[in-house]
Amino acid sequence: MIPNKIEHIGIAVKSIEESLKYYEGILGLKCYKIEEVADQKVKTAFMMVGETKLELLESTSPEGPVAKFIDKKGEGIHHIAFAVSGLADRLREVEEKGVQLIDKNPRKGAEGLNIAFLHPKSTQSVLTELCEKPNE
Amino acid sequence: MIPNKIEHIGIAVKSIEESLKYYEGILGLKCYKIEEVADQKVKTAFMMVGETKLELLESTSPEGPVAKFIDKKGEGIHHIAFAVSGLADRLREVEEKGVQLIDKNPRKGAEGLNIAFLHPKSTQSVLTELCEKPNE
Repeated sequence: MIPNKIEHIGIAVKSIEESLKYYEGILGLKCYKIEEVADQKVKTAFMMVGETKLELLESTSPEGPVAKFIDKKGEGIHHIAFAVSGLADRLREVEEKGVQLIDKNPRKGAEGLNIAFLHPKSTQSVLTELCEKPNE
Repeated sequence: MIPNKIEHIGIAVKSIEESLKYYEGILGLKCYKIEEVADQKVKTAFMMVGETKLELLESTSPEGPVAKFIDKKGEGIHHIAFAVSGLADRLREVEEKGVQLIDKNPRKGAEGLNIAFLHPKSTQSVLTELCEKPNE
């Protein structure tokens, strides 16, 4: 496939408000949007670093996947998202190579992107997202 | 400070050879160098994705920091490294803001970079590296 770039790095946090004290106050980044993704039970905050976004993930429910991740592993890096072209075809391609897909088909993610997750069992334990802009 | 970009993402793996079957064979990336960093007891493999590197980290000793990380948390994302300008000044700057430094002063890392780690206690549980090219 060859990803075009790292679209974003997802970071699980207990509180976006608290985390921004570090990311904005110390690293000097700028949060340009906070968005809720209801079906993932998560609130997201975005910052650009070069061509890549940092995406802070705060669970909106104790039952959400990010809350469960923090219960198990603590706060920290949750996933990497690669920008690809032709997402649906890329999913078929990696599935044929034996990768287990969490999302068999692209679905809508934050920032209007089409996204799909690969299962960490198939990706060396790194939860991995592929994404593309809708018109690419 | 404002980082220039994400210089690399460090990923702890048990075996670089095994991991490259995924990163090269499935994601389509290309490992351009394998380098040993003796004082960190680690062997590193580098791949470019856009402007950012993925750095696979395989411990060369059961006592090394990467081996201990895997013992505790399993394989997965180990740290984020931000490219900055004026690394020594940036360290003083974040220390004055209360960040606990692992490296009080820049030291040599892989790929000839000057690097320093910030303690995850001060960085929202994300082990964070700052780095710069020697002549920047």
